[in-house]
Amino acid sequence: MIFFHEGQILYTYLHIAADKPQAQALLAKKVKAVAYETITSPEGGLPCLTPMSEIAGRLATQEGGAKYLEKPFGGRGVLLGGVPGVKRGNVVIIGGGIVGLNACKMAVGLGANVTVLDISASRLAFYDDLFDSRVTTLFSNRTNLIKCIKEADLVIGAVLIPGAAAPKLISKEDLKLMKKNSVIVDVAIDQGGCFETSKATYHDNPTFVVNDVLHYCVANMPGAVSLTSTLALTATTLRHGLNIANKGLEKALADDKHLLNGLNTYDGKLTNEAVAISLDIPFEPVAFN
Amino acid sequence: MIFFHEGQILYTYLHIAADKPQAQALLAKKVKAVAYETITSPEGGLPCLTPMSEIAGRLATQEGGAKYLEKPFGGRGVLLGGVPGVKRGNVVIIGGGIVGLNACKMAVGLGANVTVLDISASRLAFYDDLFDSRVTTLFSNRTNLIKCIKEADLVIGAVLIPGAAAPKLISKEDLKLMKKNSVIVDVAIDQGGCFETSKATYHDNPTFVVNDVLHYCVANMPGAVSLTSTLALTATTLRHGLNIANKGLEKALADDKHLLNGLNTYDGKLTNEAVAISLDIPFEPVAFN
Amino acid sequence: MIFFHEGQILYTYLHIAADKPQAQALLAKKVKAVAYETITSPEGGLPCLTPMSEIAGRLATQEGGAKYLEKPFGGRGVLLGGVPGVKRGNVVIIGGGIVGLNACKMAVGLGANVTVLDISASRLAFYDDLFDSRVTTLFSNRTNLIKCIKEADLVIGAVLIPGAAAPKLISKEDLKLMKKNSVIVDVAIDQGGCFETSKATYHDNPTFVVNDVLHYCVANMPGAVSLTSTLALTATTLRHGLNIANKGLEKALADDKHLLNGLNTYDGKLTNEAVAISLDIPFEPVAFN
Amino acid sequence: MIFFHEGQILYTYLHIAADKPQAQALLAKKVKAVAYETITSPEGGLPCLTPMSEIAGRLATQEGGAKYLEKPFGGRGVLLGGVPGVKRGNVVIIGGGIVGLNACKMAVGLGANVTVLDISASRLAFYDDLFDSRVTTLFSNRTNLIKCIKEADLVIGAVLIPGAAAPKLISKEDLKLMKKNSVIVDVAIDQGGCFETSKATYHDNPTFVVNDVLHYCVANMPGAVSLTSTLALTATTLRHGLNIANKGLEKALADDKHLLNGLNTYDGKLTNEAVAISLDIPFEPVAFN
Amino acid sequence: MIFFHEGQILYTYLHIAADKPQAQALLAKKVKAVAYETITSPEGGLPCLTPMSEIAGRLATQEGGAKYLEKPFGGRGVLLGGVPGVKRGNVVIIGGGIVGLNACKMAVGLGANVTVLDISASRLAFYDDLFDSRVTTLFSNRTNLIKCIKEADLVIGAVLIPGAAAPKLISKEDLKLMKKNSVIVDVAIDQGGCFETSKATYHDNPTFVVNDVLHYCVANMPGAVSLTSTLALTATTLRHGLNIANKGLEKALADDKHLLNGLNTYDGKLTNEAVAISLDIPFEPVAFN
Amino acid sequence: MIFFHEGQILYTYLHIAADKPQAQALLAKKVKAVAYETITSPEGGLPCLTPMSEIAGRLATQEGGAKYLEKPFGGRGVLLGGVPGVKRGNVVIIGGGIVGLNACKMAVGLGANVTVLDISASRLAFYDDLFDSRVTTLFSNRTNLIKCIKEADLVIGAVLIPGAAAPKLISKEDLKLMKKNSVIVDVAIDQGGCFETSKATYHDNPTFVVNDVLHYCVANMPGAVSLTSTLALTATTLRHGLNIANKGLEKALADDKHLLNGLNTYDGKLTNEAVAISLDIPFEPVAFN
Repeated sequence: MIFFHEGQILYTYLHIAADKPQAQALLAKKVKAVAYETITSPEGGLPCLTPMSEIAGRLATQEGGAKYLEKPFGGRGVLLGGVPGVKRGNVVIIGGGIVGLNACKMAVGLGANVTVLDISASRLAFYDDLFDSRVTTLFSNRTNLIKCIKEADLVIGAVLIPGAAAPKLISKEDLKLMKKNSVIVDVAIDQGGCFETSKATYHDNPTFVVNDVLHYCVANMPGAVSLTSTLALTATTLRHGLNIANKGLEKALADDKHLLNGLNTYDGKLTNEAVAISLDIPFEPVAFN
Repeated sequence: MIFFHEGQILYTYLHIAADKPQAQALLAKKVKAVAYETITSPEGGLPCLTPMSEIAGRLATQEGGAKYLEKPFGGRGVLLGGVPGVKRGNVVIIGGGIVGLNACKMAVGLGANVTVLDISASRLAFYDDLFDSRVTTLFSNRTNLIKCIKEADLVIGAVLIPGAAAPKLISKEDLKLMKKNSVIVDVAIDQGGCFETSKATYHDNPTFVVNDVLHYCVANMPGAVSLTSTLALTATTLRHGLNIANKGLEKALADDKHLLNGLNTYDGKLTNEAVAISLDIPFEPVAFN
Repeated sequence: MIFFHEGQILYTYLHIAADKPQAQALLAKKVKAVAYETITSPEGGLPCLTPMSEIAGRLATQEGGAKYLEKPFGGRGVLLGGVPGVKRGNVVIIGGGIVGLNACKMAVGLGANVTVLDISASRLAFYDDLFDSRVTTLFSNRTNLIKCIKEADLVIGAVLIPGAAAPKLISKEDLKLMKKNSVIVDVAIDQGGCFETSKATYHDNPTFVVNDVLHYCVANMPGAVSLTSTLALTATTLRHGLNIANKGLEKALADDKHLLNGLNTYDGKLTNEAVAISLDIPFEPVAFN
Repeated sequence: MIFFHEGQILYTYLHIAADKPQAQALLAKKVKAVAYETITSPEGGLPCLTPMSEIAGRLATQEGGAKYLEKPFGGRGVLLGGVPGVKRGNVVIIGGGIVGLNACKMAVGLGANVTVLDISASRLAFYDDLFDSRVTTLFSNRTNLIKCIKEADLVIGAVLIPGAAAPKLISKEDLKLMKKNSVIVDVAIDQGGCFETSKATYHDNPTFVVNDVLHYCVANMPGAVSLTSTLALTATTLRHGLNIANKGLEKALADDKHLLNGLNTYDGKLTNEAVAISLDIPFEPVAFN
Repeated sequence: MIFFHEGQILYTYLHIAADKPQAQALLAKKVKAVAYETITSPEGGLPCLTPMSEIAGRLATQEGGAKYLEKPFGGRGVLLGGVPGVKRGNVVIIGGGIVGLNACKMAVGLGANVTVLDISASRLAFYDDLFDSRVTTLFSNRTNLIKCIKEADLVIGAVLIPGAAAPKLISKEDLKLMKKNSVIVDVAIDQGGCFETSKATYHDNPTFVVNDVLHYCVANMPGAVSLTSTLALTATTLRHGLNIANKGLEKALADDKHLLNGLNTYDGKLTNEAVAISLDIPFEPVAFN
Repeated sequence: MIFFHEGQILYTYLHIAADKPQAQALLAKKVKAVAYETITSPEGGLPCLTPMSEIAGRLATQEGGAKYLEKPFGGRGVLLGGVPGVKRGNVVIIGGGIVGLNACKMAVGLGANVTVLDISASRLAFYDDLFDSRVTTLFSNRTNLIKCIKEADLVIGAVLIPGAAAPKLISKEDLKLMKKNSVIVDVAIDQGGCFETSKATYHDNPTFVVNDVLHYCVANMPGAVSLTSTLALTATTLRHGLNIANKGLEKALADDKHLLNGLNTYDGKLTNEAVAISLDIPFEPVAFN
C-alpha cells in the first residue's frame, strides 16, 4: 500500500488505469499526479513509453536468443546465427511495432533466420524497405502463426493493442506443436501477455516451463540494463521535470498541452479521459493558464 | 564434321578432352590449336572460363526463378522475393563456386530465401562474410540436400569437380520429394549434369518435365545474353589474340607461359598433359624461345 | 457480357469507373457490389491494390530485364547485372510510387545501373535514404527522360495519376532514340499506358515490337505468379469477406467505414462518389447502422 | 585417469601436447590415436578447430555483452546497442582471427561501438573491407590497448599464437583502469588466457570478479550451444570417421595425407612432429600405402 | 539598395522577414513578389529550400572534413575515415534535420566515427533505422554536447528552429575544451549561427580561427557546387515559373495554393502572415480566381 | 645534398633506386641503410608502403572530388553525390589496387557514380563482391578508358606496375575529350604519373590546368593528413626500430628476414638485388647470425 501526502505533486509512471484503489487514494488525497505513460509529444506517440519499448524489444532477443536458448539455461542449445555450414536459429516475432522492430534488429544482427508477423500490410512493407531479404514478413493469421511456431527456436510476443489487454494468440495446447526446449519471450506481459500460458516473472527467477517450452515473462525487462534505461528515461522526462520545478506545476501544465495530457489526477478530479473510462470514474477535465 | 586446314592456327574453345575424333583430326592436320579453356593466368584459375561461369550463374537464377517459376511457363507461380506479408521463394544452390556465388548474388538480390550447400567449410565462411544473414549456408551432405529440396521452389545445380564428370546428387526418385512444378536448373550440364534426370537442351526448347519438376538444362546458357557474353569473352581473349597476330604464334607462346598452357596440339603433337591423359594419347610437350 | 442475379452480393475487383454498361447492369439488377479497388484502410491507401502493385513492380524488372532482354526472346542480349569487367544494363524507371519502388528493388538486386525519375522531390529523397549510391534519382522532366531512354536497356513505365488516364510520356517517335532491341514494360497499361505505343497484351502473347523496341504490356501481370498473388490478395480481402459472411453485408458495412468505401452500387444506387463522377451517374450515398 | 585398450583406434580431440602422462599411456598401449586438432585440410587450416573457434567467438559477444553486462548478472547494466539517443556499449576485441571475426560480427549486429585490435595490418584491412565504418580498427600495441580498455564495457580476448601460450596482454593492475562492473571474456583460456587474472571456469559457475571486473573464462564455451556445436563438429569429422570405418585406419591414412597429419600415436611411436617436440619425446614418422 | 519597377513581378528568393526596408520598398512599388522560400508543396515542407539544405549538409562534411581538417588548410591533419589500424576522425553533428541527415550520409560514407545529436527521439530513431551501428545517436543536451565536442575533430552545426534565430549552443568559452585545430562548420549561419563565435564568411575567404578552432561559416555554401545547385533549384522553381509566364501571375496563383503561399507582397499589401508578423506590418491576404 | 656519417645506421624511406648519387654516397660512407620501402612482411606485400597507399587513395577522392571539383577551386561545380533529383558526379578510377580500392570506398561513400577499370578480372570480381551494384567494373582497355573519361567529372590515376614507371594511359590530346573543368588526380605521380600531362606538385600550389582539365599531382599526398599518416607509419616501423635499438642492427637483421629485405646498403655493399639491378651496381648480399 502506497501512502500519499495531501496535495503532493507526483511525477512518475502511475499505471492506474487498471488499479482503482490507487486511483481512489490519489483522488482522496488530492494528489497532483502526472503520469509518464500518458504524456504525449508534438510528433505523436507516447514519448516516455517509446524508449522502454525499444529497450524491451532489444532485450527480448538477447534474453531469449542469446541466453535462454543455451543448454545450461534450459534451452535447445542453439546458436541463433549458427556458424557457416550449420542451420541458423529461427526467430518468430509476433507484432511489428516498436518492440518488434527492435527485437528484429537484434535478431538480424545475430544472424538468425527471422520472420515477422503483423496484420498491417504497410508496416510489413516498412520491414521490407529496411531489412530487404534479411527478414521474412508474413501477414499475421492463425495459419501463418501455427506454421511459424512449429519451426521456431525463439518466439517473441510483441503484440500491442493500445489501451487493451493483449490478445492470447498462442494457447497452451499450441505449445505442444513447438520444438522441445524452444523459448518464448512475452513482451506483452504488462498487458496480460499474448501467450495463454504467460504469467509475470521477475529478474531473480525469470523463467518457467510449460509443455516443454521455456517462458521468459519478466514484466520489467528494462531493469536488466538499468544504466541504459535510466539514461533513456531521464532524457525524456527531465525536461518536463525541470519545468515543473522551475515554473511550478500549474504554469508548466498551462504552457505545454503534452504535459497536461499526462495529468491523471488533480485536486480530487480524474483528469484523463481514457483513464476515467477505464476506471469508470467521472472524467473532469481541468484547464490552466 | 569439322575440316581443318593443314597447319592452320586455331584459337578458340576446343573441348577435345572428351572428343577423340576431333583431337585426332587436329593432330593429323598438324593444326596449331590454342584452346581457350586451358589458358591460365598469373593469378591462377582459367581466365577464359571464369566469365562464362559468372554469366551462367547469374542466368541460372534469372532463368529458373524469374522465368520458369512463372505459371505461364509451367512453374509454381511463385515470385522469388514474395511481397510484404507473403512468403518468399526458396532457392537452393548446390555448390558454392563461381557459378554458385553468382547465382546466389542474383537470388539474394531478388529477395529470395537462399540456401547454399558446399563441402568446403572455408567457402561457406566466405559466404557468411559476404552475405551475413541474407543466406543460409549448409554443409553439403545427403541429409541436408534432401531436407532442402523438399522445401525448394528452385534448385540450382552448380557442382564442379574440375576435369571430371559432375556427381549425380539428386536422383530421379528424389524428385518425387519436391514440390509440384518446382524448377531445377543444371549448370553442370556441360559435365554431364548433377541431377540424374538432366539432359542438355537448347535455347529454342530449353525445358522439360520429369516427375512434375521442370528441368532447365541449356548447355550454352551465356548465349542468351550474347552481347554481355561477347564483351566478357573478348576482354579476356583479345590480348592473346593480338599477340598471336602481331608476334606470330611461336613468339607469343615463347613470351607467355599462360598462353602456352592453352596450346593443345602443335605439329601433330598433343601438347597438353591433362588432355593427353584424358584422351590416352601420348603427351609431347613443346617449347619455344 | 456478365449476367448478375437480382440483389446478389458481389465482392471482387469491379473496375466499373470506365465501364458504364457494366455499372448500369449492376444498378438495374440492384446488385450489392463491393469493389476491392475502392476499399480503404485506417493507414490510408487502397489495401487491395497495394499488393498487386508490389507484385507488378517486381515482375516488371523480371519480365523486362531477366527475360525479354535475352536474345532468344528478342532482346539485346544484355545481362542486367553484367559481370565483373563488363558494363551493367541500364534500367530506367519512370515513376517512383509503389510499382516503381518494387521494380527498383529488383533491378538493384540484379545489379543493374538504375535510374528512377519522379516529379516529387521528397519521394526521390526517400529513394536516396533507402538505396544511397545504388540508384540515381532524377527529377522527371522531358530533358531528363529523353537523356535516360537513349541509354536505356530497359524502361519501366510506372506512372500513376490516381483516378486518371496515365500521361503518354514517351511517343512513338521517341522510340527511335532508343537502342535497337531494348525493352519497354508498361505497368500503367491498366490506365491506358504511359507509352504512346502501348496496347494491352496477355500472358500467351505478351510482347510486340514498335520501332525496334520490344513492348511488354500485359495488363494482368500478377497472374504470372498466381500462387504469390493469391496469397497476397486473400490476406487482404479475407477479413472483410468473413465479416460479410458472418455478420451480413449491411452490418459489416455499418461496422467498418473502410469497407463502406468499397461499396459501389447498392439497391440501384451508385454509392461511390468518384465512380459516380467518372460515369456521370448521380451519386447516392447510403448509410447503415 | 583414462584407461586405453591395447592397440585400440582413437578418433577424437586429444590435446596431449601438454599432457605427457596421457601421451605416455597412449604409447605404452600402442593406441592408434588420430587427434581432431591436428587434422589438416587441402585449403589450409585446422578444419576441426575452425567451427569451434567460430562458435566461441560468437558466444563471446553473447555471453559477455548480452548476458553478463546485465545488472542482475553483475554487470554495468548496459545494453550493447543502446537505444536511439543513448550511448551504445563499447566492445573491444583483442585479436582479429577467426574468434575475433565472429565476435565482431555479433557485436556489430547488436549495434555496439566496436574496436578491433590486431598486429596485422592486412587483417585489419580485411575488417575495413567487410565492416567499413561499423568497426574501428587499431594496431594492437600497449598504448592503444590501454586507451581502449578504459572506455570498454566488454573486452574480448581473442589472441592466438598457434602452438604457444597466449601472451598476457592485460595485467591485474590494468583492470583498475577499467570501468566498474565491466566484463572480460577470455576466449584464449584454453591456451592459458590473455588476461593475467584469467582462470578456467565451467558453465555451472562461469564468472568471477577481480578488481571490480567480471571475468567469464569458460574453457568449453561451445558446450553452451550443444546442438549447433555437434552439427558443426560432425559435419567436419564424419567424413574421416566413415573412411576409417569403411576402409580400415591404415588404408584411410594412406589415402589422405590430411588425416595422416591427425595421427599422433601409432604402434608405440609418437608420429606428430610438433607434439613430439612439445613433449620432448622422439618423433617417429610412419607411412602407409 | 535594390530598385524595383512599379508593379513588376518578382519570382526569386526574397528573405524579407528580417529586412524591413526591402519589404517597404516592395510594398511602396506595389511589386508582385513571390518568394521561393515560402512556397509550399502538397507533400508539406518548403520545396525550394529543401534542395539547398541537402546540398549545404553534404558540403558541410566535405568542407569541414575533407578540406579544412587537412594540415595545409590549417586543420589537425586528420583523415576522417582513418586507415586500417589508425583511429577514424570524430564528426559531431548537432541537429538531425535535412542538413544534418545529408552531412551524416557523407560523414558515414567517408568512414568517420559519427555522432548525431537531436532533441527529437523519433528523429533519432529514424537515424537508427537508416544507419544502424554506423552512427551514434544522442539526445541533445548540454552534458552530451560538451562530452562530444571534447572528442570532436569536426563539429557541424545544423540546428534549425523554423522562423527563428538559431540558438547559440556552443559558446566562445566552450571552444577551449575542443582539440587544437579542430574544425567547426556552421550551416545555421543564415539564421545567425549556432556557435557564439560564428560570423558569416564568403567563398573567397571562408575560414577564421577563434580559440584555436577553425570556423567555416560561408552563408552561401551551395554556390561552391554551382552546377549541381542550379539543376536542383531550377527543377523545383521552373514549373511555377512556366505557369506564371504562360497563364499570367494571377491565374497561376488562383490555380495553385502552394504558389499562393509564396506570394509575399501584392499591390501594396503584405500577403504572407508569418512575414507580416515578423515585420510587424499588417497582414492583408489576397485571393484570386 | 645529404651528408652521411661514416658507418651510421639509417632507418627511413630511401628511394635510391632512381637516385644513384645518393646510393653512391651511402656506399662510400659505409652507411648501414634500411629502407622502409623494401621491408617485407610474412603476409606478403610491403608493409611500410601499404598505409601510405591507403591514405593517398582516400585522399585522391577527397582532393579531387570534394575540393577541386568545387567552383571556387576551379572545378565544374559538381557535388559528387548530387542530391535527390540531380545527377551524381562520375568518378573514374584507373587501377584497382590498394590506392584504387581506397579511392573507390570514399567515392562510393560520397554517393558518386563510380567506375573502376583494371586489367585483372579477378580483381574486378573482388570489387563486385565488395561493392555489388554500387560500382561499375570495366576491363581496362583503350576503348573503355576513352568512353569513361568523356563522361567523367573526376579521374583518378591509380596505376601501379611494381618497380617500373607508370604507363601513360591518357595523352594530352585525350584531355580534349574530357568535360571542361573536370579534375584529374594522379596518384602514380611518384612513378612518373599515368597521365602524359602530369608533373609533380606540392601542397602549397597543388594544381595546374592543361586543356581545361584541372590536374592535382601532389607527390606527397599523405602529408596533408599528417597526424593520420604519422600514426599509420609509426605503427608499422616502430617494431623494427625498437628491435634495432634494443638488439643492435646486426642481431635484428639476423632475427628477421623481412627487416633484412629492407637493408639496401651495408659496409659499402649494395645488398638489395632489385635496387642493384636498377642502379647497375653489383649486388652483394650479406648475411647475419
